[in-house]
Amino acid sequence: GFAKVDNHRNLRQGYPEVVFCQSKTVEQVVAICENIAQKGNNVLATRATPKMYEAVKGKLSKAKYNKMARVITIENEKVRVDKGYIAVVTGGTSDMAVAEEAAETAIALGNEVRTVYDAGVAGIHRLFANLETIQGARVVIAVAGMEGALASVVGGLVDKPVIAVPTSVGYGANFNGLSALLTMLNSCSSGVSVVNIDNGFGAGYLASMINRM
Amino acid sequence: GFAKVDNHRNLRQGYPEVVFCQSKTVEQVVAICENIAQKGNNVLATRATPKMYEAVKGKLSKAKYNKMARVITIENEKVRVDKGYIAVVTGGTSDMAVAEEAAETAIALGNEVRTVYDAGVAGIHRLFANLETIQGARVVIAVAGMEGALASVVGGLVDKPVIAVPTSVGYGANFNGLSALLTMLNSCSSGVSVVNIDNGFGAGYLASMINRM
Amino acid sequence: GFAKVDNHRNLRQGYPEVVFCQSKTVEQVVAICENIAQKGNNVLATRATPKMYEAVKGKLSKAKYNKMARVITIENEKVRVDKGYIAVVTGGTSDMAVAEEAAETAIALGNEVRTVYDAGVAGIHRLFANLETIQGARVVIAVAGMEGALASVVGGLVDKPVIAVPTSVGYGANFNGLSALLTMLNSCSSGVSVVNIDNGFGAGYLASMINRM
Amino acid sequence: GFAKVDNHRNLRQGYPEVVFCQSKTVEQVVAICENIAQKGNNVLATRATPKMYEAVKGKLSKAKYNKMARVITIENEKVRVDKGYIAVVTGGTSDMAVAEEAAETAIALGNEVRTVYDAGVAGIHRLFANLETIQGARVVIAVAGMEGALASVVGGLVDKPVIAVPTSVGYGANFNGLSALLTMLNSCSSGVSVVNIDNGFGAGYLASMINRM
Amino acid sequence: GFAKVDNHRNLRQGYPEVVFCQSKTVEQVVAICENIAQKGNNVLATRATPKMYEAVKGKLSKAKYNKMARVITIENEKVRVDKGYIAVVTGGTSDMAVAEEAAETAIALGNEVRTVYDAGVAGIHRLFANLETIQGARVVIAVAGMEGALASVVGGLVDKPVIAVPTSVGYGANFNGLSALLTMLNSCSSGVSVVNIDNGFGAGYLASMINRM
Amino acid sequence: GFAKVDNHRNLRQGYPEVVFCQSKTVEQVVAICENIAQKGNNVLATRATPKMYEAVKGKLSKAKYNKMARVITIENEKVRVDKGYIAVVTGGTSDMAVAEEAAETAIALGNEVRTVYDAGVAGIHRLFANLETIQGARVVIAVAGMEGALASVVGGLVDKPVIAVPTSVGYGANFNGLSALLTMLNSCSSGVSVVNIDNGFGAGYLASMINRM
Amino acid sequence: GFAKVDNHRNLRQGYPEVVFCQSKTVEQVVAICENIAQKGNNVLATRATPKMYEAVKGKLSKAKYNKMARVITIENEKVRVDKGYIAVVTGGTSDMAVAEEAAETAIALGNEVRTVYDAGVAGIHRLFANLETIQGARVVIAVAGMEGALASVVGGLVDKPVIAVPTSVGYGANFNGLSALLTMLNSCSSGVSVVNIDNGFGAGYLASMINRM
Amino acid sequence: GFAKVDNHRNLRQGYPEVVFCQSKTVEQVVAICENIAQKGNNVLATRATPKMYEAVKGKLSKAKYNKMARVITIENEKVRVDKGYIAVVTGGTSDMAVAEEAAETAIALGNEVRTVYDAGVAGIHRLFANLETIQGARVVIAVAGMEGALASVVGGLVDKPVIAVPTSVGYGANFNGLSALLTMLNSCSSGVSVVNIDNGFGAGYLASMINRM
Ligand SMILES: Nc1ncnc2c1ncn2[C@@H]1O[C@H](COP(=O)(O)O)[C@@H](O)[C@H]1O
Ligand SMILES: Nc1ncnc2c1ncn2[C@@H]1O[C@H](COP(=O)(O)O)[C@@H](O)[C@H]1O
Ligand SMILES: Nc1ncnc2c1ncn2[C@@H]1O[C@H](COP(=O)(O)O)[C@@H](O)[C@H]1O
Ligand SMILES: Nc1ncnc2c1ncn2[C@@H]1O[C@H](COP(=O)(O)O)[C@@H](O)[C@H]1O
Ligand SMILES: [Mg+2]
Ligand SMILES: [Mg+2]
Ligand SMILES: [Mg+2]
Ligand SMILES: [Mg+2]
Ligand SMILES: [Mg+2]
Ligand SMILES: [Mg+2]
Ligand SMILES: [Mg+2]
Ligand SMILES: [Mg+2]
Repeated sequence: GFAKVDNHRNLRQGYPEVVFCQSKTVEQVVAICENIAQKGNNVLATRATPKMYEAVKGKLSKAKYNKMARVITIENEKVRVDKGYIAVVTGGTSDMAVAEEAAETAIALGNEVRTVYDAGVAGIHRLFANLETIQGARVVIAVAGMEGALASVVGGLVDKPVIAVPTSVGYGANFNGLSALLTMLNSCSSGVSVVNIDNGFGAGYLASMINRM
Repeated sequence: GFAKVDNHRNLRQGYPEVVFCQSKTVEQVVAICENIAQKGNNVLATRATPKMYEAVKGKLSKAKYNKMARVITIENEKVRVDKGYIAVVTGGTSDMAVAEEAAETAIALGNEVRTVYDAGVAGIHRLFANLETIQGARVVIAVAGMEGALASVVGGLVDKPVIAVPTSVGYGANFNGLSALLTMLNSCSSGVSVVNIDNGFGAGYLASMINRM
Repeated sequence: GFAKVDNHRNLRQGYPEVVFCQSKTVEQVVAICENIAQKGNNVLATRATPKMYEAVKGKLSKAKYNKMARVITIENEKVRVDKGYIAVVTGGTSDMAVAEEAAETAIALGNEVRTVYDAGVAGIHRLFANLETIQGARVVIAVAGMEGALASVVGGLVDKPVIAVPTSVGYGANFNGLSALLTMLNSCSSGVSVVNIDNGFGAGYLASMINRM
Repeated sequence: GFAKVDNHRNLRQGYPEVVFCQSKTVEQVVAICENIAQKGNNVLATRATPKMYEAVKGKLSKAKYNKMARVITIENEKVRVDKGYIAVVTGGTSDMAVAEEAAETAIALGNEVRTVYDAGVAGIHRLFANLETIQGARVVIAVAGMEGALASVVGGLVDKPVIAVPTSVGYGANFNGLSALLTMLNSCSSGVSVVNIDNGFGAGYLASMINRM
Repeated sequence: GFAKVDNHRNLRQGYPEVVFCQSKTVEQVVAICENIAQKGNNVLATRATPKMYEAVKGKLSKAKYNKMARVITIENEKVRVDKGYIAVVTGGTSDMAVAEEAAETAIALGNEVRTVYDAGVAGIHRLFANLETIQGARVVIAVAGMEGALASVVGGLVDKPVIAVPTSVGYGANFNGLSALLTMLNSCSSGVSVVNIDNGFGAGYLASMINRM
Repeated sequence: GFAKVDNHRNLRQGYPEVVFCQSKTVEQVVAICENIAQKGNNVLATRATPKMYEAVKGKLSKAKYNKMARVITIENEKVRVDKGYIAVVTGGTSDMAVAEEAAETAIALGNEVRTVYDAGVAGIHRLFANLETIQGARVVIAVAGMEGALASVVGGLVDKPVIAVPTSVGYGANFNGLSALLTMLNSCSSGVSVVNIDNGFGAGYLASMINRM
Repeated sequence: GFAKVDNHRNLRQGYPEVVFCQSKTVEQVVAICENIAQKGNNVLATRATPKMYEAVKGKLSKAKYNKMARVITIENEKVRVDKGYIAVVTGGTSDMAVAEEAAETAIALGNEVRTVYDAGVAGIHRLFANLETIQGARVVIAVAGMEGALASVVGGLVDKPVIAVPTSVGYGANFNGLSALLTMLNSCSSGVSVVNIDNGFGAGYLASMINRM
Repeated sequence: GFAKVDNHRNLRQGYPEVVFCQSKTVEQVVAICENIAQKGNNVLATRATPKMYEAVKGKLSKAKYNKMARVITIENEKVRVDKGYIAVVTGGTSDMAVAEEAAETAIALGNEVRTVYDAGVAGIHRLFANLETIQGARVVIAVAGMEGALASVVGGLVDKPVIAVPTSVGYGANFNGLSALLTMLNSCSSGVSVVNIDNGFGAGYLASMINRM
């Protein structure tokens, strides 16, 4: 009885409850996952350690794990959005963990996802080599740390919503993601909005919500 | 020739060029507006002073002005989005200027807009009194200064995208909008994303983009 | 003789000395607790590690430990405040450690405490489901991290003092509690005041002081 | 119809609606005050300019103005709290405007108020000269800018709730009240809580709420 | 005698003394300019108001003024660097004042300068339309406010030193230039270094120093 | 040859070289100490770990270690300042490590030192109980974390120079010493100046310098 | 009766009360000055506007004004410290106002003062040209904005106490004095301590206190 | 296929791809290095742990490692810049790791490098003892933490470009390099520009780029 699992949310919001594993114990995570799965709902658990996955897997054998994304998923009923795809773009290779959290979330919510990784603006030819994929998407998630300039450049190239995810990747004057956060909030490209630093889940969830429209 | 007006954007992005009047001279604003209007495009100019409006009106008689929003519009061709409406909600009466910038932008881009002002969470019955309007929208713009809690509460009540606009309204530890900005970025409600402090235009533009989907 | 234990405070302020264990050694904590208990006073020690508890327990067998709250208590004389109860409300499950510190403090000082955990504003129906408990209290302690919006919503629903405790729970733009702190300081709800980030003790102590009036 | 005046609050919270005049026009302030006074409620309007007062006075002849506090009051029905007095203490003479806002608020809400101004800790004999007044209060409001040390010293001397109000008075490394705010939040004295920088109203309102208990 | 004019610097550093007019009186500026001109040296005065220019012009008739750049120059002896040109690129039209300060400085120091204004990354085709000019330069000065992404994109396109100048242009979360500053410091493009916010002079001076090599 | 040991400083400044051990290897510390001791100079090494002490002791048997202060000293020639004593006062017990660094430094430089620990302003009677010691000193070092109010109170009680040392002790809104630092810089008491957070050495050195006058 | 003038401080601290005019009215300043002068004490009033001076002069004809320093002084009894001189050094010409406040304060308190202005480290030969004056002083006040490096360089050149005064002079990343403040607090030169940004008075007062020893 | 190695950059920018090892796995680093070496290109890998070096060495026997710099280099073809040397100067011994990263980078890119370590401004005679080396360079890299004053002093002594590298070395109010960063950005010496905190690589790369001109 320690946490109020909200099984009504499935009806109210069109999506099942999502488990945020950070600062929970392995026992708590297992209990919450079982509770959700029991009702026949799909499970999506973010910020899950390998230990948590193993414990969940022990109880719920359909559990899958994306290690880089740190995401556990259990698919009890098929969800599909037939509306084109979501593109997830990153500036560098070290932004990939956050990008995978976004991608796994969007996939779990039934969306097709295409990824373009390590396409940062410091070598803009890498971005242009993937322009078709980016411009063909219905929603773009732009994930970048350090300078965070990716969101603006992408925002100027597409006429679809761009969800910017600043990452804490970097050192020095990035101040744990502050530099990318501020850059993205100040984007001069229209159609760009921002979620919390490292919040891949939030970006994937919102992208799915928009893609369903 | 001081600014490169981008008449192709109308084609490329589906929307005309928008004029950001802040830190431009009256002469610059008039010249840019004329340039756009000449091509038969609609004009949307934000952060415009009454002086700027009068000067534009002198040249382009169809110009209209929303004083609170500080927005000039010229409608040369009708644009209509037939997709339901966008709701604009504010926490207090002093957030209304930013909200109006958002609303005027969305209207200029062809959307129906419904507003719920002064419904901040400190007196949450005011929000519930307008729940139907808020839950009926396809996209919600939540505008709030000071504590900025509005975005989270609204985000928890709707299953549609919420665009949060922190405002610089307040004093003391709001540090010119920082408090509302951080609160909104940390929202635990899924489906919430954030634009720059006081960026009503950005919210209205993105809301329109999503509403068209 | 390293620390001046203030046994007069019991008389001067109506409460015994409280031990803040953080950055003290196990030896120091034991010595201070013994010194207080020797005078027949009650002991309240916060931020105590399990190691500290075991060492204290070895000397003072009446010692009790709330692990989540990290609080050691020894009751040598009964203290009771017969004035109704204090409500402790949290936004999420991860704010519970701070909430328990507040609750244990208030209980040690003789108050009745009722808790409502995981009732954050992102799912406001969880708050309303407990409205009676919250509105029936003489003082409310609102504990929340991330967006910290809980304090404002609660403040608008009750006409009793609300003590807001920001927590450092979260990531990214919460900047170790700064986001919740600023939100709470900017609360538009009257009757809300704020203590330091994670300062459950301070909130519990102040709530007790008010409840005694 | 621009602002939802909440006449029910008088019943729900035991206090009439309060008008926050900052960033409102003179016309708006007059309209809201008339609306409140019409129902026979008392009026309390903070951050009011002399111009606003004159305009209100023109319509509502019972209006009074405390210029230093920038507060307008209209007493339509007597409110009295018969519970002892609230002490308002300031560090310096330049904190007096904020202190007067607190005092006027508490008085309007029916409390007796005693003030001890310019008693900052840099000359602690000035504080001790008024110790009896401070220790005799049921609630103390400590108003200080710059170093903000007053709250801690007062908190250590009384066993009653201390509401700390940091002010933006000062220069340099006070960073518009940040130094006093942080100091007060870090107070080692138990029973101290903090409201927003310069928020005299909030302190007065909370003090009254506590004094009524 | 109030300021030590350093006429030896012409010899020691290869450049004449430069006058920084901000927070000097008109009288001080005139006196310093006269002192320099008297020795036959060239004069370069930055942050000069129109009033200062008029006063200097009254004494030294060869004085010229770039109003947008706020720069006064007096050319007493020809200085020419025969080494190709310096490109000055801006993100928006409102960055032009800072860009002109950089350009005027570099020109005064004998360099050829080519400018590409309003070519921000939000419409990256504007940058590519000027790629030849940018890639042909020996040094590039990239001036941008808000998101400041220009420096990284330019840095990735050229193999010459890029001097990034963040500007204070913008609002909200740009925090007076902080966003552009942090972005530029975090640039993933090699060959990029940064000067102070709005420091067009510093960029022009350094560009000239490098161009002379 | 990795570090330029400055044996002339003994002559130039009247004090021997001081070794700052933080971020040096054990080998480096030993080598520098030997180098200094060889010339017959006294050795003072701060931020030294027990490991470093053991290694130094192995080579230089006169070495002494104050574990709480983390200071190694070797006295090769007697230094005495016959001028009265320096008082070192702390707010809490957890500030003692920094205070001991200050005290050890001052003692090594030949001064008499008297300490008053755990006398913070939250229980001001503890300060007054030691008033004679504090007021009798020629220089006072005030060491405090959290609220940092100690420096102001002490500054108001003595007419001698007060050197304030903010410490990083605390949690939450102390932001690693920022709160105490800002408080101390804003002190309204005349005669107070501030050194870096946790810089006990700097305070002890300056106090000695002043005491010698 | 609005302010408690502390005529006893003359005895207790050896110095008369000092008037801080900022955020006081002209009437308040005049009243306080008269009150002090009446007792035969010397008057020192800082941050005084020309208007305040004229009003004081009207009542107290011995009043003198240093316009750059914004300091009013009235000498009723001679105070002289016969102990050598205090040196006041500035980095640039724009730091002179703060330096003059320090100098006037020290002079009013009876000290001999020698000034070395515009000797910043960017042209270190200017500092060396005045080395004798600087090294001959008993205390040095180093006043600098922007980079604030002056304090460290001076601190390394003298073996006397250096009081560092950061100024808010500059622009951009100086963030109103923050850059100079942090630099000075981090000084690696021993014997350097810091007062508040722009606090010339505090530096002059402390320098005098040390010079008297 | 996880990272797009950019072998064309060798042609486009005149330098081979550089590997940034931080937040990469040992396997990723080895794979990228092999990929680059296979094409006959030189390898430069920064922020490499000893473990990474051993793994690379296992596959590519020509690999060399500078442990302090944390840099791996493989020289497949000789690169030489015959243009004079680059000077790398540090303030303290603890800045040497960052300085070595800069030096190794510049050497790998074909430059001659001369180093002057531990020459901070607190003992300015150490800087002057090496003046000839510093003034003889074509580019100077100034590396300093804490107060960061070195860049300004060096900038004033040379008429060549100075690249300032703030380091995170220090404690307290250096706030992980912020103090040195701000100081360097505010440098009053012309010709100084700044790279990210601890970014030795960026400084070495830019210095090489300038030295080639
Ligand atoms: N990675 C994530 N970052 C932020 N919020 C998340 C994340 N994953 C899940 N959430 C949110 O956290 C809520 C669950 O929080 P809790 O009740 O603490 O498990 C979910 O409903 C989501 O809205
Ligand atoms: N000086 C003040 N500072 C902060 N909040 C205030 C102040 N005065 C009034 N308020 C609050 O602001 C509310 C009214 O806000 P509004 O609807 O914008 O007029 C009141 O109910 C009070 O809770
Ligand atoms: N605890 C300390 N904090 C700050 N500076 C110190 C400390 N101990 C010694 N120092 C200074 O550091 C200098 C030596 O630095 P280093 O050459 O790196 O050993 C000494 O001369 C002192 O000025
Ligand atoms: N120490 C360093 N600091 C910052 N950037 C670096 C460093 N070393 C290499 N880089 C840059 O990082 C790029 C490679 O990044 P990545 O693709 O993540 O390996 C290189 O081309 C360099 O521009
Ligand atoms: Mg776009
Ligand atoms: Mg929602
Ligand atoms: Mg309430
Ligand atoms: Mg108390
Ligand atoms: Mg490049
Ligand atoms: Mg004193
Ligand atoms: Mg010195
Ligand atoms: Mg130079």
